[in-house]
Amino acid sequence: MMRPTHPIAPVTPLVTDRLALRPLGLTEVELRHGFWADWQRQNRDVTIPHALAWLEHDGSVDNLRDPGAAPHRGMWFSDSDVYKTLEGLGWDMGRGPAAGPATQLETAIAELIEVVARAQLPDGYLNSFVQGGHARRFEQMATGHELYCLGHLIQAAVAHHRATGAGELLTIARRAADCVVREFGGNRRKDTDGHPMIEMALVELYRETGEPSYLDLAQQLIDVRGYRVLEVRGHFDSAYYQDETPVREQDTVVGHAVRALYLLCGVVDVYLETGEQALLDSALRQWESMTATKTYLNGALGSRFDGESFGDEYELPPDLVYGETCATIAAIMLSWRLLLATGEGRFADAIERALFNLLAASTSVQRDAFFYNNPAHRRVARPAAPTDVRPQRAEAPGTRPPWFRCACCPPNIIRTIASLGGYLATHTDGGVQIHQYASATIATPRGIRVETRTGYPLDATIGVTVARTDGREWTLSLRVPDWCRGATIAVNGATGPAVPGQRGYLDLTREWRDGDTVTLELPMPVRLTVPHPAVDAVRAQVAIERGPLVYCLESPDQPDGVDLNKVELLLDEPLSEERRELLGEPVAVVRLAALARDDSGWAGSGWATLGEQPARAGSRVRLTAIPYYLWANRGPSVMRVFIPVATPT
Amino acid sequence: MMRPTHPIAPVTPLVTDRLALRPLGLTEVELRHGFWADWQRQNRDVTIPHALAWLEHDGSVDNLRDPGAAPHRGMWFSDSDVYKTLEGLGWDMGRGPAAGPATQLETAIAELIEVVARAQLPDGYLNSFVQGGHARRFEQMATGHELYCLGHLIQAAVAHHRATGAGELLTIARRAADCVVREFGGNRRKDTDGHPMIEMALVELYRETGEPSYLDLAQQLIDVRGYRVLEVRGHFDSAYYQDETPVREQDTVVGHAVRALYLLCGVVDVYLETGEQALLDSALRQWESMTATKTYLNGALGSRFDGESFGDEYELPPDLVYGETCATIAAIMLSWRLLLATGEGRFADAIERALFNLLAASTSVQRDAFFYNNPAHRRVARPAAPTDVRPQRAEAPGTRPPWFRCACCPPNIIRTIASLGGYLATHTDGGVQIHQYASATIATPRGIRVETRTGYPLDATIGVTVARTDGREWTLSLRVPDWCRGATIAVNGATGPAVPGQRGYLDLTREWRDGDTVTLELPMPVRLTVPHPAVDAVRAQVAIERGPLVYCLESPDQPDGVDLNKVELLLDEPLSEERRELLGEPVAVVRLAALARDDSGWAGSGWATLGEQPARAGSRVRLTAIPYYLWANRGPSVMRVFIPVATPT
Repeated sequence: MMRPTHPIAPVTPLVTDRLALRPLGLTEVELRHGFWADWQRQNRDVTIPHALAWLEHDGSVDNLRDPGAAPHRGMWFSDSDVYKTLEGLGWDMGRGPAAGPATQLETAIAELIEVVARAQLPDGYLNSFVQGGHARRFEQMATGHELYCLGHLIQAAVAHHRATGAGELLTIARRAADCVVREFGGNRRKDTDGHPMIEMALVELYRETGEPSYLDLAQQLIDVRGYRVLEVRGHFDSAYYQDETPVREQDTVVGHAVRALYLLCGVVDVYLETGEQALLDSALRQWESMTATKTYLNGALGSRFDGESFGDEYELPPDLVYGETCATIAAIMLSWRLLLATGEGRFADAIERALFNLLAASTSVQRDAFFYNNPAHRRVARPAAPTDVRPQRAEAPGTRPPWFRCACCPPNIIRTIASLGGYLATHTDGGVQIHQYASATIATPRGIRVETRTGYPLDATIGVTVARTDGREWTLSLRVPDWCRGATIAVNGATGPAVPGQRGYLDLTREWRDGDTVTLELPMPVRLTVPHPAVDAVRAQVAIERGPLVYCLESPDQPDGVDLNKVELLLDEPLSEERRELLGEPVAVVRLAALARDDSGWAGSGWATLGEQPARAGSRVRLTAIPYYLWANRGPSVMRVFIPVATPT
Repeated sequence: MMRPTHPIAPVTPLVTDRLALRPLGLTEVELRHGFWADWQRQNRDVTIPHALAWLEHDGSVDNLRDPGAAPHRGMWFSDSDVYKTLEGLGWDMGRGPAAGPATQLETAIAELIEVVARAQLPDGYLNSFVQGGHARRFEQMATGHELYCLGHLIQAAVAHHRATGAGELLTIARRAADCVVREFGGNRRKDTDGHPMIEMALVELYRETGEPSYLDLAQQLIDVRGYRVLEVRGHFDSAYYQDETPVREQDTVVGHAVRALYLLCGVVDVYLETGEQALLDSALRQWESMTATKTYLNGALGSRFDGESFGDEYELPPDLVYGETCATIAAIMLSWRLLLATGEGRFADAIERALFNLLAASTSVQRDAFFYNNPAHRRVARPAAPTDVRPQRAEAPGTRPPWFRCACCPPNIIRTIASLGGYLATHTDGGVQIHQYASATIATPRGIRVETRTGYPLDATIGVTVARTDGREWTLSLRVPDWCRGATIAVNGATGPAVPGQRGYLDLTREWRDGDTVTLELPMPVRLTVPHPAVDAVRAQVAIERGPLVYCLESPDQPDGVDLNKVELLLDEPLSEERRELLGEPVAVVRLAALARDDSGWAGSGWATLGEQPARAGSRVRLTAIPYYLWANRGPSVMRVFIPVATPT
């Protein structure tokens, strides 16, 4: 085993022959311009101060300041919101001086670490709800979230240590981890936490410290699960907790979506360090089942409000989807690990779909309001979210609320956006792989430096310049997205078709010279997407996509009087594309012809006997589709992603 | 105002000119043979003893035996389960000696009344959870269910008093109601209960006792609602509690389905006694909106698991429907009140759909197991329900559980089935109206006696004999169901078309003679039903119906290897009907041709670009559809009501 390279990246597997691709850190990949770079700046300038204020306002920090001094406020796992925000602050620091002045960030981090340090008990235990006397230590494993919270503390510490090299928070996290090892390690207990999370955190802590007991405990907590070790009381069954079937036997994702996916992140992390093939096989099976049968077009996961959980295969209703933001973030984390383990572009395809659609839609364009769950069809405009109180998670209101009583999503968004550079590119001994397209600079430990320049996803052209190379041959691998047809490549001006290899990448191998230019064209005409015939909820409907973007029809863009619940796409006229500024962004909107249906003949009934139903009637209108991620930024609205297709009358 | 006639019926409005039809009591309408009579017998012989045993087993009776002596068990509103069962026992007693020996019932009723009498505080207050010290009286109005429980106590007392004439339980209920009047009446408080129910109970108590303060309080509790008088904490908003909009301004049903419908029952009851047209208008508007846009084909109501609530218009997913049994029962109660108020057959049509489909499916053929919520599409067979524990309500398992921790549905079924005779027919000064078809005898206060004989819903023929008349002219009104085409009528052998009047009834007016016979034929060929084009979830699908029955495809009836998630109806071959015994019942099953689709070309993805999707492939098979109400009686299964239609390839 080689020593870790310690890039400032969210997942840093040790370099073994299991690791197909090696991550690059946030100082190695710098987002410079465009969609993600802008969001990353807003994440620091707007979202992080917003979150810090709310964590003070809602009591989450106070809970830790002096556990038990005042009644605990908010959810019993509110510590995790503080830790996740702290993790985001860590990654944001890790982006380095180029990201801008960091004094305020540093102060905030120092203050939070001070709070956490004081709260920790002498034996390393730390949980403000338990220490406040509201529960007993490690007794309510199914619902208590104690290991979940400590897992997020560990992740925050790993981020802080990787980003700054400072050991303060890592020391706290190690003491907490050691406390858990003493309680659970060496099979001293046979149970685990109802909410997986600590598994991947322990592997990361092992990577950061080299301490094998953390890896051993991660493995143990995965191994015990699935034998109904958690006491099932109240609303949810063992499957909800991923405690119905051992992970090595599980074929598909079940239960609470975030839990299922966090668990699989830990499963892949343990595989990467131990090499146990059965773990990777299970993660691949479950990912494949999820991607083919339980993922919405916009990247949403978890069909069901009940238990925030995965539905059955092809149970994908766009109006009733739960689609928790955290579930899509967890899927990005899982896909990233599988990409590192396999080098297969399908995982980067899934990340792209998730990033540009659901994740982008989870946050307002001002970046200070959030959706906890994300519909793909809003039939009736709902009232705008209040701006001064924290709604429950449940139903998404008409606009994004500023915070939540269960505030897991906003800090999860913060840590993801702050560390986004870590998901763009990887390296191997033989080259550089570019998975996501943005204007960025990419530097590898070997000394190669590549610059990308693109207006993606609006523009189809990605320019790559080799800014520095080492004179030896290496391979530049560029992902050709699964949605793309007819990609072309030009190397120093010589153009040809871009035919990806089996893993989905165009591999360009040569002795590169400084200044060499590569231009990848990914044609992105407007296309119509049809659902698998088993997806009953959107049968006879299509969606509009362009490049990586899923589109939607939203009421503010339509002619007066058009009810989006009563439109049908007319295919006798081609769809057209039009550049426009929308909400301060240049976008391509899509214009389409539709039947605005007059359903008045159906008055009084939702059903009719075949042969007696009213004839289809209505008038031809022109509608406008916009990128899905921009919806609900202009007040309450009606919205739909899938559009019925008018059938011949 | 005339004095009440006091039939032994669940709703007995005072006779005013608002009352279009007058109810008949359980001794006046006797179910003799067939579907409902058999269930009514099983209700007494199987379901009632089963329920009494579970109420003892789960602590619900013990909670009342000595509140506070032991920790309260089960839900904080478990008293209501006892009261609803007691109400069912009352109606069952009320069916009279013809219904069979009643000694055990009488003993059970006496024991329960004794328990309730002892639990009641000197001032009339009664709530085992509050008296046990777990909450304070009338403080948690949004969630406490205190008035809800007392409402059910009142309903039980009204049933017992009507059925037996004995005053014991009525005295208890009056003392409880007086306690509520003292606390809330005369606008002393501006709030109400989070769970409507007591409104209709107070009106019934007014009808039974003549005490106007009960009617006044019912009106007050309706009037205060809708002004956000309930403190919204936790998961649910004001709309969930029907506290967002005053009832007179409300246009559609919103929020928790059972609450919305119980409230509307009270609204119609108050209208019937006060004549305030705005109340009836609101109830009609909401009923019409519900029926046209928020009711499933099988009579299910409440699309959403989240909040057990109504969805938006046309949000009717068959796989994710919540469809609580109690919501459909509440809709029957509301439709019945509107039928009495208007005399319009559309309300009886709705009751028929609810009775023969969702309500019939809510209970196992053995009548000792129940669905709390009722899917109309089950994609994956789920494990059978455990028989020895009480599951949560949430997701319906593969078979019906014997009881629930939140056990509102089984007692609701008991009281409905026990009082079913009350929903069959009505009378006016001018005649008799038959709304539902079963073999029964119907006697009116005027001395008319009519006998009906039918194998409905299997058979299309309903024979009616005038067994006794008074020599004067009167009108026999027979409902022609909305699904029926080509009905015929024969009076003493002379046949002609049965053309219903505007209200949906065939009215036969003559000087009837003893022994006159009428034969109504309601042709019920198998038909295909298409959904309103705005019901996205079942677009391009059809359902099979025959007469009042909705059909389903269930896996045990299909050829080996057929996956019901991958079938499409082939319309090039007619559907055929076949008589068969199924689960001990003679039924008509429906045979159909279908494409068993081979979706293997879609491997790995739930989406494809239009034009690139795999060609439709598969093989022709013959499938069998059975009445929906029989599903899930042969172990875990896959089931669907709506079937995709194969489109031309």
